This record gives sequence, structure tokens and C-alpha cells, in this order.
Amino acid sequence: MNFGSDNQTGASPQVLEAIMKANDGFLHGYGDEDYTRQTVEQLKRLFDCDLEAYFIPTGTAANCLALSSLVNPWQTILCHPEAHIIQDENTAPELLTGGARLKAIATEQPKIHLEDLKKVLSYQAKEAPHNSLAGAMSLTQCTELGQAYQPEEVKQLCLLAHQHGLSVHMDGARFSNAVAHLGCHPKEISWQAGVDVLCLGATKNGALAAEAVIFFNKELAVDFEQRRKRAGHLLSKGRLFSAQFQGWLENDHWLELATHANRMAEMMAKGLSEKPGCRIIFPVEANELFVTLPKSTTERLQQHGAEFYEWPTSGLAEHLQPSEGEQMIRLVTSFITKEHEVKQFCDLI
Amino acid sequence: MNFGSDNQTGASPQVLEAIMKANDGFLHGYGDEDYTRQTVEQLKRLFDCDLEAYFIPTGTAANCLALSSLVNPWQTILCHPEAHIIQDENTAPELLTGGARLKAIATEQPKIHLEDLKKVLSYQAKEAPHNSLAGAMSLTQCTELGQAYQPEEVKQLCLLAHQHGLSVHMDGARFSNAVAHLGCHPKEISWQAGVDVLCLGATKNGALAAEAVIFFNKELAVDFEQRRKRAGHLLSKGRLFSAQFQGWLENDHWLELATHANRMAEMMAKGLSEKPGCRIIFPVEANELFVTLPKSTTERLQQHGAEFYEWPTSGLAEHLQPSEGEQMIRLVTSFITKEHEVKQFCDLI
Amino acid sequence: MNFGSDNQTGASPQVLEAIMKANDGFLHGYGDEDYTRQTVEQLKRLFDCDLEAYFIPTGTAANCLALSSLVNPWQTILCHPEAHIIQDENTAPELLTGGARLKAIATEQPKIHLEDLKKVLSYQAKEAPHNSLAGAMSLTQCTELGQAYQPEEVKQLCLLAHQHGLSVHMDGARFSNAVAHLGCHPKEISWQAGVDVLCLGATKNGALAAEAVIFFNKELAVDFEQRRKRAGHLLSKGRLFSAQFQGWLENDHWLELATHANRMAEMMAKGLSEKPGCRIIFPVEANELFVTLPKSTTERLQQHGAEFYEWPTSGLAEHLQPSEGEQMIRLVTSFITKEHEVKQFCDLI
Amino acid sequence: MNFGSDNQTGASPQVLEAIMKANDGFLHGYGDEDYTRQTVEQLKRLFDCDLEAYFIPTGTAANCLALSSLVNPWQTILCHPEAHIIQDENTAPELLTGGARLKAIATEQPKIHLEDLKKVLSYQAKEAPHNSLAGAMSLTQCTELGQAYQPEEVKQLCLLAHQHGLSVHMDGARFSNAVAHLGCHPKEISWQAGVDVLCLGATKNGALAAEAVIFFNKELAVDFEQRRKRAGHLLSKGRLFSAQFQGWLENDHWLELATHANRMAEMMAKGLSEKPGCRIIFPVEANELFVTLPKSTTERLQQHGAEFYEWPTSGLAEHLQPSEGEQMIRLVTSFITKEHEVKQFCDLI
Repeated sequence: MNFGSDNQTGASPQVLEAIMKANDGFLHGYGDEDYTRQTVEQLKRLFDCDLEAYFIPTGTAANCLALSSLVNPWQTILCHPEAHIIQDENTAPELLTGGARLKAIATEQPKIHLEDLKKVLSYQAKEAPHNSLAGAMSLTQCTELGQAYQPEEVKQLCLLAHQHGLSVHMDGARFSNAVAHLGCHPKEISWQAGVDVLCLGATKNGALAAEAVIFFNKELAVDFEQRRKRAGHLLSKGRLFSAQFQGWLENDHWLELATHANRMAEMMAKGLSEKPGCRIIFPVEANELFVTLPKSTTERLQQHGAEFYEWPTSGLAEHLQPSEGEQMIRLVTSFITKEHEVKQFCDLI
Repeated sequence: MNFGSDNQTGASPQVLEAIMKANDGFLHGYGDEDYTRQTVEQLKRLFDCDLEAYFIPTGTAANCLALSSLVNPWQTILCHPEAHIIQDENTAPELLTGGARLKAIATEQPKIHLEDLKKVLSYQAKEAPHNSLAGAMSLTQCTELGQAYQPEEVKQLCLLAHQHGLSVHMDGARFSNAVAHLGCHPKEISWQAGVDVLCLGATKNGALAAEAVIFFNKELAVDFEQRRKRAGHLLSKGRLFSAQFQGWLENDHWLELATHANRMAEMMAKGLSEKPGCRIIFPVEANELFVTLPKSTTERLQQHGAEFYEWPTSGLAEHLQPSEGEQMIRLVTSFITKEHEVKQFCDLI
Repeated sequence: MNFGSDNQTGASPQVLEAIMKANDGFLHGYGDEDYTRQTVEQLKRLFDCDLEAYFIPTGTAANCLALSSLVNPWQTILCHPEAHIIQDENTAPELLTGGARLKAIATEQPKIHLEDLKKVLSYQAKEAPHNSLAGAMSLTQCTELGQAYQPEEVKQLCLLAHQHGLSVHMDGARFSNAVAHLGCHPKEISWQAGVDVLCLGATKNGALAAEAVIFFNKELAVDFEQRRKRAGHLLSKGRLFSAQFQGWLENDHWLELATHANRMAEMMAKGLSEKPGCRIIFPVEANELFVTLPKSTTERLQQHGAEFYEWPTSGLAEHLQPSEGEQMIRLVTSFITKEHEVKQFCDLI
Repeated sequence: MNFGSDNQTGASPQVLEAIMKANDGFLHGYGDEDYTRQTVEQLKRLFDCDLEAYFIPTGTAANCLALSSLVNPWQTILCHPEAHIIQDENTAPELLTGGARLKAIATEQPKIHLEDLKKVLSYQAKEAPHNSLAGAMSLTQCTELGQAYQPEEVKQLCLLAHQHGLSVHMDGARFSNAVAHLGCHPKEISWQAGVDVLCLGATKNGALAAEAVIFFNKELAVDFEQRRKRAGHLLSKGRLFSAQFQGWLENDHWLELATHANRMAEMMAKGLSEKPGCRIIFPVEANELFVTLPKSTTERLQQHGAEFYEWPTSGLAEHLQPSEGEQMIRLVTSFITKEHEVKQFCDLI
């Protein structure tokens, strides 16, 4: 019963096969071969547009190198207070952007609302060079609190950001879960809605280590090869990383995996909603649940071998916070989560 | 007939198997699991000492993050003028060390001689804070020009470096080829000879993407986890990277692969030495040959599908340089090079 | 009638004289002379302790270089949301610390309260290397909103910070105004209260360009000379900068200047408090006033040649904010503010 | 008898007067006032062209911030092996450019020859993103070894640099000495010859602390205000720094000072040339002499109170180096050097 994180899995068999298929013989290094070129074409078809794409082994590097293409080192990047880039990537954003700044948009909600963005943009100090001005906004799809932005929400946020001269980055570590949940075309929550660069993560949902930095705004990609190389993220055997994407995308495997994970979360939500003392904090829209439980319950679950993380709650609105004696935990399902594990977990409560 | 680079290969079957074996089920991310812990123990046994080891997907990142642990951002790193860190890693050393400087040790030889190091240490400007003082020396084993440092050579260089307060880094992208060539114990050309940190590369010799940063001087490792994370090089599915090392090291597989590559180079050297107009510039000590040939010959070889790189020669002593109408090329053999390819290549000359 | 900023002044005659006195003849550069050495001794007497001190031409550089001595590039610096380092120094903190992060301590008050610090320390994510952990706290004395921390307040904040392993930096751009207001010994709000490094600013209060970075915790100074040099802040004619401090400190000139500025602010506060429609937002404790006025009034003042800045108010508690039709402005007095200017300003309202 | 460095002087009386004249009353900070604006106009007249100019308190910062405007962080800057930026500015170039690299152009001559530049440009590795490619060339006028580039030399070097896509920076710490020596118009060795940005140093020749970064290629200046601020080099009391330039330039005061310094060097050269055992290594073209003397002589000179620096000689051609028992020293004259000091020095030999 592991609900710790979707990165505690291995790779899916189809992804491993793709690696093995690409493994034989000599091919040029550093992505100068057909596997990589074909995968970029595959992404163009998937997103139904022209684009530039680069493969990176980790989400942290993908996000931060993408951001470094959007802002100057003296600019600020706006994001949700719980965004991975501001919470979980140490100071990689600062290192890889050359010293740009992250600023959390004040909000008590699990995703950025248009009003939140309006407020921070109207209130920010604007006197260059004294103040560091916002140069980009970063959205996370799904958010770190398990919420999917609707296409219209992405569109409104991007529109306002662009009106203020900001570029838009999307952290898509769980983009596949969002697409599976929304049932939309990938383009509807990316370039059509105004996203300039998407970090499409395959690692959490079935790859070994594969993230694609996808520039819909191709002008922003001009220096990306230099940035990737000097951060040590240009892989010599590039084919073995782009091949992962091939295997992941082929026959909608990525959506199949995400759909399963989402379904497990839904099943978990259904099971938990019937338990007294158990409160699901946010709508379950993908593969993450945030739940408050009596501490005695969480302890018992752990004693029975259930894995999950206690989740900090400082920024949330008062009414969303656990009361005395309760704990908030995060439960994450994945492409390998089994129905019986979910059932077993619910039964334990 | 590909002699372009040993990174134009895939992974060896034994390494792929190790990945697949480690792939199943849930395990903690970020190296907090037994595959990673066991691999560190395996390295301790291999080197016959205590050590700290961290896994990194690229050689550039391994080298530069290791160096960032040895020097302050205001110090200088001494290296051979042809070292990978100064020639082929863009400005990753500067980025990942926070702005430290690389300085080539003037030499016309394919490896650093003790006299070269003496000279640069005695002549360097020493007035802090105006001058940037040397804080580390980097050796490459085998060197970029295919030479293996003898244990005694490493020892003498490290001794002098330490006497001047420098730490010692070894770029071991082809460490396995060196061990195979020298027939020594790995410790004889690493910690016993005074190396503080070794970047042991498996990628060029059979892994998918796996480099180990090995701190023999454990005190220098104190911040390495922070450095690795903020460069985006902490892999979430760490087991799939440490497992590569397991497969690579098991039953001396790494030496078996390196020995094959070296033997192919030796065979190539033998074949070429009999050809008129063909001059082997440096002793062939591992899996790289540097050869001058008439341009007409290199063109014919390429027309017949042979792959190799022309090699720049600016820094070499006059008598080592190609004469008018000649070209210097680099030929690299690997664990998948076939005897018949070597033979076919030699026959074409 | 200029109340724009205390940095819109020149230098005091006594400071200029000190420069001229130090100007003649040859002396070693870069602070290797007696003017600089004597000034450090003068600071030791002033603070009644041993210390290391370095002179820097700007407050931004003094603050950020000091901070770079307190934190590693992967750590976070906590400060008030209105602190100069987070609002008015662009991304100098990021550049000069090598990429460390600033984090505003959530508060609606014009200075950091112990409860605010407690909250942020207890709620911060603590899982290295994923999270960037707090390594330092920065206090501003007087704060950007014109408040002086009492010795006991500094002490309590430093104690809590130290208990959590944080070093303490004090931005003392208006330290002299604080001492003049509090009537305390300089040591009571610096090292005795737990401050590790103080940036003592003379520029805003009578110097040409002179800030002293004073390490009470001398161990933290070990690399400061390197840091100052590589940021381009080691002045060749160092004597002409340390001499400014000599002139500034001699015969309590610094306190005399600060006392005058504070007195002008007090007089202004008295004058304004009698005016209907004029609300002084924070207690006037030094040389800054924050006042809400009808917009029509501020416009009239400007038409009559009064200079001041409108001040953004986003972070303040609701009840401190200007109502519809009002504006919040900042008024700063200085060592050259004249009584008749204050009077004239008040009369205009 | 101080011949240590021209930065061991104070400011000239005319410069101090200009400071005092600009000191009174309130004026906007950060260069937003007429002193600064007028000084920029003065520079336009001096150079007979349009330009952007920014004032900076140190030469190190001026050089490195200028360079940061010319290259991306993944590019290389070519310079003479004895250039101040590579020898005497610690790792400020790396810090302030965000990690760009310096590369010394191999030469045994005291200035860069066209052939040297040709060689490095034709031999440099060119495979992006693996190699860091040259993005700028830096010339020093006069060079660190006391040589003035002729207008035609500057022109040829700039032409070749531009043809290879490099921008050109000139370190003009002793630009005034070069103009005084060459008797040319300042534009002939700057923009007319192809220099993109000149760091015009006043500090070594009569200012307190004042360097101007002058962009003849105005497009390169687009981010300079941001760069200056985030390095902590935007001076609040900007008028007191631009005023130094006013005083320095007025009535050709700068040339008057430089001419005096040069004349003292010429007199010294004449005196020394008559002394047996004394060899002047390079033509004396400005205010620096490089001389080999018997060690016994240099010791006697020091015992009699003469100040000068022994100078390292590692990079020079064999025949320029001191022989056994000799020492190479550098002698620098300045605007305050007295004839009798020169005479006394020569007489002591």
C-alpha cells in the first residue's frame, strides 16, 4: 500500500521496451539521431502545432532551464505558494536562471485564481532597476494540490500575464493526469490557452527519467541548447531518453497510464468519503488526495504498512486546516497502484 | 565502421538487465532505497576503502559538481589544455562551481608532467584577493589523448598538488580503460595515489547514463546532496541509475567491456602501423588512437562509411602536428566494436 | 522642501574634510594603510568589542555581501516583506550570494514580531535537499517603515533565530537614527543582542559613499575579502572611504546628524498631527513618516514644490491602508532638512 | 619615492573641487540629476559621437559589468595573458558575467598582435554547445605592460574580431596615458577603430573613485542599468561620482595629469638607460617601466625607501626575462610624481 509518490514507481514495460529497441548499434550522441528527431515530430503531431522540444532527465532541471529561457536574471517569476519550483527544487531556479527570483502569489486556494494574479500584478513595485519586476508566470498542471486548471482558466491567466509582458511556463509533471481528467486535447491547456513553454513530465507516469521541455513560442528556445549543456543536462546517449517518450506516447499509452492512476484516486476518494472523521480537502481531480484524519488513524495505517506523507498546511485557509488531533496527509496513486491496495487502505480506516 | 566516440553506443545487455531487475514495484525515490545503498557498498569493496558515492546521469555534471565541492567560487582549477572540463563542457564548470576559473597547465604533452605542474604553481600570481589562486587540480584518466597515468605519476602529481593546498579531482570517464590497460588495482590510481574525488564514468563503457562521484576524502562531500539537487541532478527513480552500476560492476563486467575496447584499439594500432603514410601520434594505451593520414585517405575512408572525428592540434608540439596535406584524426573503439570493423577499416587505407 | 529620501543629500562638511585630510601623497591602495586600520580601531571602540570591518561604497553591496557570508547558496534568508533587500536591491541578493533565496516573513506589522518569526520557522518545509532551508534572518534597523527595534526585541528575535541555526544580519542603513532615537549604546542593539553582522550605513546620514560591514562574529568574515573583491567592491583608494567614517564618527558627529534628522521628523509629526484629514500611520521613531492624506492635498503639496514618494501599501493590515480618495506618502527628513522647510510643508496642508 | 602604482595616490585638487561644488542641497539620487546628465554630454563632446555612459566606482566592476553586456554566460572572452581582467580581478569576470570564461591569447609580446588573434580564432574549437565559443575580445589601453596600441593596431584587431562575431571591450584604466602618448583624438583609438565599449578610468589618474562605462554601440547597453544595480554598483549619491568626471575632463585636466605622469616615466627611462646593469624591457610609452636590475640594486633601492613591485615574468619570451641574479621590477609614475623623486631614484642606482 504505497501512496507516497508517483515517482516511487519504476518504468512501464512499454517504455522499457522502447529503450531496448533503441539500444542497439552505433548512433550519433547528444540527440543527433533519428529517435530524437522522430520524437520531436511525434510531439508536434500530439500538440498539433510546430514546436521545439528538448529532453531532460529530471523535472527540476526541465522546469528551471525552461524558466531560464523566459526571464532575465534580474526578473521575478510568479507562482503558486505550493508550486514545486518554489517548494521542492531547492534553489535550482536561482542557480539555473542566473539568479532570478521566485515570488509566491498570495492565495489560500489550491490553484491560482485570476483575482490573485491581478492583485500581485497591480501591487508589485515597478521602479526598475531598484525593484525586480515580474518576467514570467508559472502554472502547475495538475497543481501540487491535485487540481486541474480548466482550459478557460489557463487562457484567462495567460492572457493577463501576457498583457503585463510576462511569459508563461507550465510545470506539467502531471500534465498527463490533467489531460486524462479534463478529457481535452493537449493543445487546449497548453499553446491554445497561451502557454509559452511546457515541461511535459513522463517520469512520474511511467518513464525511467524523461521530461520534455516544449517551446510553443519557438523564439524563446534560441539559447536552450547552450543552457542545457552548461547545466550538464545534455545526455550523450540521447536516443535512450527520447525513446522513452516514443514508448510513452505510442498508442496513447501515456493517457492509459494516467487514466488508471486517476481512476485509483477516484476509487480511493469514494471509499474515504464514506468514512467518518475523514475529510477530503480538495476536489479529487487527478491522482492526488489531500485528506484530514484523526492522528490515531494515520498511525494505525502506517503500522499496517501504508505509505504516505503528512502534508504541511501553513498557507491554506483556516477552514481547510486540520483541527486539533487531526493530521493532513497526501495520498498519491500511480500507474501501478492496484485496486486491492486502495480497497485495503480504505478498509483499514 | 564507427570510431566516432564510445558514447555513440547503447547500454550493454547486462546493464539493461540490471535496470529491469530493479524496475518492479514501489521503492522510495531519490536514492533512499537498497539498490542505491548496495551499490555504494559495492564501490567500497571495489576500491577497498570507505567512501561517499553519488550517482549522476552525465559526465559533465559529475565533473563540475565534484569540482564545486573542491574549490570556492574565487579559486582556480588547474587542468590539461585538452581536458574535457575545459574543452567540451561549455561553461558548466563556471556555472556549477559558482564562477570558479579553469586554467590550462601549459604543456605540449598528452598528459600533465610533474614539471608542468611545478612550473604553473611556482609562477602563478599569489596575491589574494586580487589574484584567483589555484584550489584544485584535475587529472583525466585516461587522458583525452588516450594516455594512462601510471600509479606513480598520479602519486607524484597529487603529492605536489597537496603540498600547495590543492585538492585533486580525477575525471574517470575512461577510468575502466585505464585500469584494464594498467592491470592495477583501482585504488592504486585513485585514493592510494592521493585522488580526493573520482568521477567514475560508466556511460562511455556500457551504461545507459550513469556516473558515480566518489569522495575518498569524505569531508569534501558534506554539501554534495545540496549541490546535486540544485543543479537538477537528483534523479527521482534513483534505483534505475544505481542499478546500472550494479550490473556494470558485477563479475568484473566493467573490465571485460574495457578490455575488449582496448584490445580493438591495439588491433587497430597494429594494423595501422603497417600502413605507409600513417603515423600514430601517441602510444595507444586505451581505446583511443590519434593518427595522421593523408587527407585523400581520410576522405576515402569517410566515403566508405567510416566514422571518426578530425582532431584539432593547436596545442601539440611541432613534431606531433600533421604536415601539409595530412590530417590528424581520432579513432575510438568501444565495447561493441567488432574485429571485422577494425580489419575493414585498416584494409581500406 | 525635499522629503524624498535621505540619500538625496550630499556629504556633511566634516566628512568632506576628512576626505581631504586623507587625500595627500602616496599610500598603499586597497585599504592597506593607516586610515583604514585606524577606522577599524575606532569601530572597535565604538562598539566596545573586537570585530572585523570592511568598507563598501553602497548599501546594496554591503547587505548582499554580508548575507553571502552567512548563508550557503542553497539556503534561504528570512526578512520583513518591506525590507530593502527584498524590495529595493533588485536581484543583488541572489547574484552576490550565488543564488540563495529571500523569503518574506508574513506580517502586517511594520517590524518583525517574535510570533511572526516563530510561525515561519515552525511551518517551513524542512526536508533537505528538496527544500531550501532558512540559514539567516535579516533585520532592518530602523525598519523601512521607520520603526526602531528595542534592544529587547532584537535580543528575542536573535535568540530564536540562533536556536534554529540561523545567523543574523542587520541592515543598518539608518542605524544611526535608531541609536539616536533609542538613546542606547550601539552595542545594545547589535552584538549584545545577538547580531552577527551589521551593515552600518553612513551614506544616508552624511557620508559621500561609505558603508561598513561589521562582523561581530569574526568567523563569518573568513572569506569576505574574496567576496568583496570579486564583486568589484574593493576600492583602490580605500583611505578615501575609510576616512569618511573617521570624519563621520569623530566627536559623535554621526549621532548629531541623526539627532537632527529625527528631530525634524518629530517636528513634522507634531505639525501634521494637528491637521484634519492627515493620519500618521506608524509611530514616528526616526526620520521617516508614513502619512495618509487626501489626494487633493498631496497634489497641492507637489504643485508647491514639495518632494516625497507615494508609498505602496499592499502588505499592510486593512485598517492601516488609505481609504478611497486618500494616498499614503512617505516623508523622509535628513541631516540637512531645515526647520523652515518642515514648517512650510505643514503650513501648506 | 613611490613607484608602486598610480592608484596609491589621492584625488587631484580639481577633482575634489568638483565634488565639493556638486555637494550642496537636495538632488535626486541614483544619477537622476543634471550633474550626471551633463557629464554624459561632456563625454559625447569628448568622443565626438553619440554614446551611453554609466559611472562605476571601481575598474574591476566597470570592466566586468561591461563584459557582461557583450557576452552570454556560455561564451568566452579573449584577452592578453597579462590583462587586468584575467590577472588582477579575482573571479569578478565570472561572477558578473554569470559564468562566462576568460581565455588568454597565447603571446610572448606585451600587446596582442594581429597574428596572435588570428591564431586563436582559427584554432578554437567551434562545436556548440560542447565548446564555449568566443563572444568578445578585450584590449587594454595602455596594456598592463605599459604599451599603447596605435590607432591602426586597434582598428585591425577590432576588424578581425568583428568579422568573427566578437564584440570589443577596451579596458581604459590608463586610456588617458595612451591618448597623451599617442597625441591622437580619443575617438581614433575607440569607436572609430571599432571599440564597442570603453571603460574609461579616471581613478588611477586623479579621481577619487570614478570609472565610466561608455557604450559606443548603444544596443549593447540595453540591460546595463539592471546589471549595475544587481551588482550593487548603482551609487545613491551619483552626482558626487559624475562630478569627478566633470572636474577631471574640464580644460583637458585629464590629459594634463597623464602628460605629467608620462613625462616622469620618460625622464626615468632616460635616467635608467644610462645605468649599467639596468635593462628597460619594453619601450616606455606611458607611465610604466619594466626594468631588470641586479637583485643587490633592487634591495638597496628598497632600503632607501623606494617603493615598487617585483613583477612576475612567466609568460614573456626567453630573451626578455631576467637572468640569474637579476630581478624584473615595475615602476609606475603618476600625476603626483615629482621630478626630484625620479632623480633621486636614478641616482641611487
